[in-house]
Amino acid sequence: MIKAGIIGSTGYAGGELVRILTGHKDVEIKWFGSRSYIDKKYADVYRNMFQIVDAVCLDDNMEQLADQVDVIFTATPQGLCASLVNEEILSKVKIIDLSADFRIKDVKTYEKWYGIEHKSPQFIEEAVYGLCEVNREDIKGARLIANPGCYTTCSILTAYPLAKEGLIDMDTLIIDAKSGTSGAGRGAKVPNLYCEVNENMKAYGVATHRHTPEIEEQLGYASGKEVVINFTPHLVPMNRGILATEYAKLTKDVTWEEVKAVYDKYYANEKFVRVLEKDVYPETKWVEGSNYVDIGFKIDPRTNRIIMMGAIDNLVKGAAGQAVQNMNLIFGLPESEGLDLVPMFP
Amino acid sequence: MIKAGIIGSTGYAGGELVRILTGHKDVEIKWFGSRSYIDKKYADVYRNMFQIVDAVCLDDNMEQLADQVDVIFTATPQGLCASLVNEEILSKVKIIDLSADFRIKDVKTYEKWYGIEHKSPQFIEEAVYGLCEVNREDIKGARLIANPGCYTTCSILTAYPLAKEGLIDMDTLIIDAKSGTSGAGRGAKVPNLYCEVNENMKAYGVATHRHTPEIEEQLGYASGKEVVINFTPHLVPMNRGILATEYAKLTKDVTWEEVKAVYDKYYANEKFVRVLEKDVYPETKWVEGSNYVDIGFKIDPRTNRIIMMGAIDNLVKGAAGQAVQNMNLIFGLPESEGLDLVPMFP
Amino acid sequence: MIKAGIIGSTGYAGGELVRILTGHKDVEIKWFGSRSYIDKKYADVYRNMFQIVDAVCLDDNMEQLADQVDVIFTATPQGLCASLVNEEILSKVKIIDLSADFRIKDVKTYEKWYGIEHKSPQFIEEAVYGLCEVNREDIKGARLIANPGCYTTCSILTAYPLAKEGLIDMDTLIIDAKSGTSGAGRGAKVPNLYCEVNENMKAYGVATHRHTPEIEEQLGYASGKEVVINFTPHLVPMNRGILATEYAKLTKDVTWEEVKAVYDKYYANEKFVRVLEKDVYPETKWVEGSNYVDIGFKIDPRTNRIIMMGAIDNLVKGAAGQAVQNMNLIFGLPESEGLDLVPMFP
Amino acid sequence: MIKAGIIGSTGYAGGELVRILTGHKDVEIKWFGSRSYIDKKYADVYRNMFQIVDAVCLDDNMEQLADQVDVIFTATPQGLCASLVNEEILSKVKIIDLSADFRIKDVKTYEKWYGIEHKSPQFIEEAVYGLCEVNREDIKGARLIANPGCYTTCSILTAYPLAKEGLIDMDTLIIDAKSGTSGAGRGAKVPNLYCEVNENMKAYGVATHRHTPEIEEQLGYASGKEVVINFTPHLVPMNRGILATEYAKLTKDVTWEEVKAVYDKYYANEKFVRVLEKDVYPETKWVEGSNYVDIGFKIDPRTNRIIMMGAIDNLVKGAAGQAVQNMNLIFGLPESEGLDLVPMFP
Repeated sequence: MIKAGIIGSTGYAGGELVRILTGHKDVEIKWFGSRSYIDKKYADVYRNMFQIVDAVCLDDNMEQLADQVDVIFTATPQGLCASLVNEEILSKVKIIDLSADFRIKDVKTYEKWYGIEHKSPQFIEEAVYGLCEVNREDIKGARLIANPGCYTTCSILTAYPLAKEGLIDMDTLIIDAKSGTSGAGRGAKVPNLYCEVNENMKAYGVATHRHTPEIEEQLGYASGKEVVINFTPHLVPMNRGILATEYAKLTKDVTWEEVKAVYDKYYANEKFVRVLEKDVYPETKWVEGSNYVDIGFKIDPRTNRIIMMGAIDNLVKGAAGQAVQNMNLIFGLPESEGLDLVPMFP
Repeated sequence: MIKAGIIGSTGYAGGELVRILTGHKDVEIKWFGSRSYIDKKYADVYRNMFQIVDAVCLDDNMEQLADQVDVIFTATPQGLCASLVNEEILSKVKIIDLSADFRIKDVKTYEKWYGIEHKSPQFIEEAVYGLCEVNREDIKGARLIANPGCYTTCSILTAYPLAKEGLIDMDTLIIDAKSGTSGAGRGAKVPNLYCEVNENMKAYGVATHRHTPEIEEQLGYASGKEVVINFTPHLVPMNRGILATEYAKLTKDVTWEEVKAVYDKYYANEKFVRVLEKDVYPETKWVEGSNYVDIGFKIDPRTNRIIMMGAIDNLVKGAAGQAVQNMNLIFGLPESEGLDLVPMFP
Repeated sequence: MIKAGIIGSTGYAGGELVRILTGHKDVEIKWFGSRSYIDKKYADVYRNMFQIVDAVCLDDNMEQLADQVDVIFTATPQGLCASLVNEEILSKVKIIDLSADFRIKDVKTYEKWYGIEHKSPQFIEEAVYGLCEVNREDIKGARLIANPGCYTTCSILTAYPLAKEGLIDMDTLIIDAKSGTSGAGRGAKVPNLYCEVNENMKAYGVATHRHTPEIEEQLGYASGKEVVINFTPHLVPMNRGILATEYAKLTKDVTWEEVKAVYDKYYANEKFVRVLEKDVYPETKWVEGSNYVDIGFKIDPRTNRIIMMGAIDNLVKGAAGQAVQNMNLIFGLPESEGLDLVPMFP
Repeated sequence: MIKAGIIGSTGYAGGELVRILTGHKDVEIKWFGSRSYIDKKYADVYRNMFQIVDAVCLDDNMEQLADQVDVIFTATPQGLCASLVNEEILSKVKIIDLSADFRIKDVKTYEKWYGIEHKSPQFIEEAVYGLCEVNREDIKGARLIANPGCYTTCSILTAYPLAKEGLIDMDTLIIDAKSGTSGAGRGAKVPNLYCEVNENMKAYGVATHRHTPEIEEQLGYASGKEVVINFTPHLVPMNRGILATEYAKLTKDVTWEEVKAVYDKYYANEKFVRVLEKDVYPETKWVEGSNYVDIGFKIDPRTNRIIMMGAIDNLVKGAAGQAVQNMNLIFGLPESEGLDLVPMFP
């Protein structure tokens, strides 16, 4: 039985980790960390967990935690994980960080986009970017996982095979992404109130969103050249789900079937990536509650562009589900253990 | 491995059965019945099932089906199951009927409220009302289960212990229920269009809703006298969930703790019934996707009434989940097999 | 041109006042009060007002305001209006208070349910309860209007004619009310976040909600006896709208047409009250954005109860619209001036 | 008093026309056409209109109608207006067609994208494209108005000044648009059911949507060259609103202020176009129920692209509101008569 601790267990991503790990037969959660709700019963914070989780919230003491568990998930604001981690802790326990602290290899880029100083730059090199379908082998031996962002997971996986195979002109790549509101977290802010989000649609963080450099870095590795893109996130009146619509010029004349073959080359054996049939496009509802990434695409001969679309549940494949997938890889468990979550419809 | 067939697998309740049974380790679905989508791939009707279910929809042939499976679920409009069932079929296979055909013991009452003739009145007596927490022992030996309605499951379980113990004056019982829109089914009708339901709230079927006699009959058994109630259903702009708010005069002076003790007498060992703590009231979101019934209550000394509130997911405990619970009981499996569904939040 | 000032113009009710008064041809808003946004442009708080309102928010200075305007609307938390008003102010200006400060004649009842000391009990007697359809004549000469609550407006008007005519047994009256989320205000609180409200339904303030004594007092006046009721508010995932479902025993044998005649006796000439046709029940969407109250009812001969249903837009007839209706009456304008708001669908 | 007839008055756009014209002081609706609801009271189809509209629905007889009214609005499926119009009718009455029949000058393009034969190609040349801010003078003298599509109105106006001034490279223009569900009409189809749309987001009509050639034609006129774009519509779980996010390479080095000046050159005096302040982006909620177009933009120096965003209410500026604006122009009324609709929030 793997013993797990969660720092930040009362945010939406933390709550989803609890939901998934509760159903994982090889894991026991030993530490429900939450600075906001110390000493409060977890099931009083998330009443869906009444009579399921019988624990109280604890402080975020990573030192103490490292002695008690095998893996620590940090589902916390940017900067916290980097400020807590050290060599001694990493020698005792695996860390899967759901924040952005170790996702970007260039510390200057991190500090510029996030506007904070990095407290543990010495571990950036070691950290493995936990996009399982891309970095599976590296993840298996990792001590420190940088669990990818929600927008990034969706955006990268949707374009990855085509970037890797040079099928799209990376200079023309534009990602227009739409996210459910749980991506904004559980903080009490006016713009996230029901009445402000409901019956409303808007873009935000235009040309400045922090997931941009993360996407650029990973697609840069894939394509073998520096990538600079436009990425525009939008807020959608729904709880869960990300849909990324991506546009790029094709570098050569290809048919739908040829592009499909390229996707299949990378994803045919990937359980959690479903490349849809011709003229079928992903809908966020079809992956809700599950760890799937659904991908569809259309070639437009009029403009010689390809429109790629990807959908995930931002809290599962975009956060907690992928974190558990990483944990499974690290501990040698079947990769989909605890993640056989059938999408819920309607 | 139990072989199951579903007649009506492409409605919302049928789809939920597929979702739950797909995750049930002792069941294999052998027949995806759907008159509307014969020969169409099931995953083309419900794309959440892409690469999970690899079957095509078949016609609703109960005779043929009875030779191939151990249990048939009928998730069909009223009247269909009664028109298909016969002694030979029942001798071969268990039937769990999610429609109302066998829920009401008095065939005249059925015919009056449903406005159709009953085609198999000879099986009404034998059929067991599949409210597991109430009729567990009878269910175990049953051939034909009348799976309770969604409103009724919620309404009955919320009041049952108090009715049984004579704590409430049944003549004063009023049930004001609110349901998500999946309860209206997947039929293409203008009143169920997104723009008609969204940002809207209404009552319907006032004093005439078909679940009324079902609630009255069951609470009549519980209280030992004839029960006539007001039941008012409402349509709520959400996909899933039923909340029942129930009002009744108390027959004696009791404290919250004493009422709680009465609930505990019946439900303390029931996994799927969660009686909430004092001053906590159920929310449909806390049971979403799960088989739980959450119950809370408040005594109002000003009016000597008790306000009881219950919440379920209408597609799970109100339909498919309870059907699987019944199946588990019939086949001697652990009652919660395949139903360890942790409520999803948010 | 009537000069108006709004204290609390940046809450949802205040914002709705601005929306309505902006379209009122005889009113000019001279003071956009908002303690939270002093010196900020109003249109930066509510961007729907960009290029429509060109004013900055001011502090809540009622003394100063009284010298500059003809009418002050206070759309503020409980207690504020009572703490600001005095004889000098009332001698200069009309006050329409959207809070509960002057709604309840018995100051002890107010203080018990609201948990605060009343700072101006000397004006309670003078204040007129601004339910226009009931107190029209008194309103015309008033200096201080207690603008009714949203739940109360809907609850009272739905039952008023029947209470007045003794057609229902007031001891059996139960009001089960459902409200959109704007009723909870614009405060940044976790329970009002989009992800907590969306896809969720719950009761709250069970047997303790502050609108209860207000309903009881007014229906007491109507029926001529002390009234004690059960009132249960529920939160619905929609922005606007209240639906009240009310249950009571009938005191005599009546037909639908006879009850309709009783409603017509009081409402036939009321522009803003629409008593619906037989077997038609109100939906909140049909009154959205308008000042209408829609009322429907059903007699249940099985239980001898009548089920009355009323729907309003909580921000219009339940707050700002009714406040403007009161203003029109006070200043001798046509009662519906500025309130010819056609309900918006969908 | 202008007498108006509406063919297709019971669709969502038709219903919105009724709502707006009901509040228009110089117009009287004489004919509520609806093939689906002939002889049914209009207020029974749209109960928001109870006691406001007291008329029954009539058949779609354009000949007869032309003798009785001054203006006919056709809010009907593609092809109907073209099949009904003739010279005699046009000699008697103004026609404002909300369908696509006369929007595209090249009949072959129309027939290819819409897949139907054009029945009145002889009137295409005469028809004026009713985008008021662009074609105001031509509209004034028109007999036949092709009222622009909802996506097109938003997409074109957002990019128009920059296309006109050569500030953007038209070959790089990509429009990613998001629409509320009322755009899909009131037809009873499974994909438009509440449970299918709610909590869901998807693209549709990718690279094939019929509004594409309309946008291309109009932006072609503006830029003086043939324009071929990618246009991707998405369905959003909300009733109303379109948000268009548009991407293009800048043709020269410009500042935000310089681009703003270009927008101001065209829109500074346009009442219904609001160009937002720096770093403010449009939200559909801020224009809900109104005839406004809100536009914001951001220059991304990293990619040398500009991201333009526009928002409208698809039923108002995207359909009925613009139709009334056209009518006002034709009949010499103030352009905003009946359109002083303050956006409703929340």
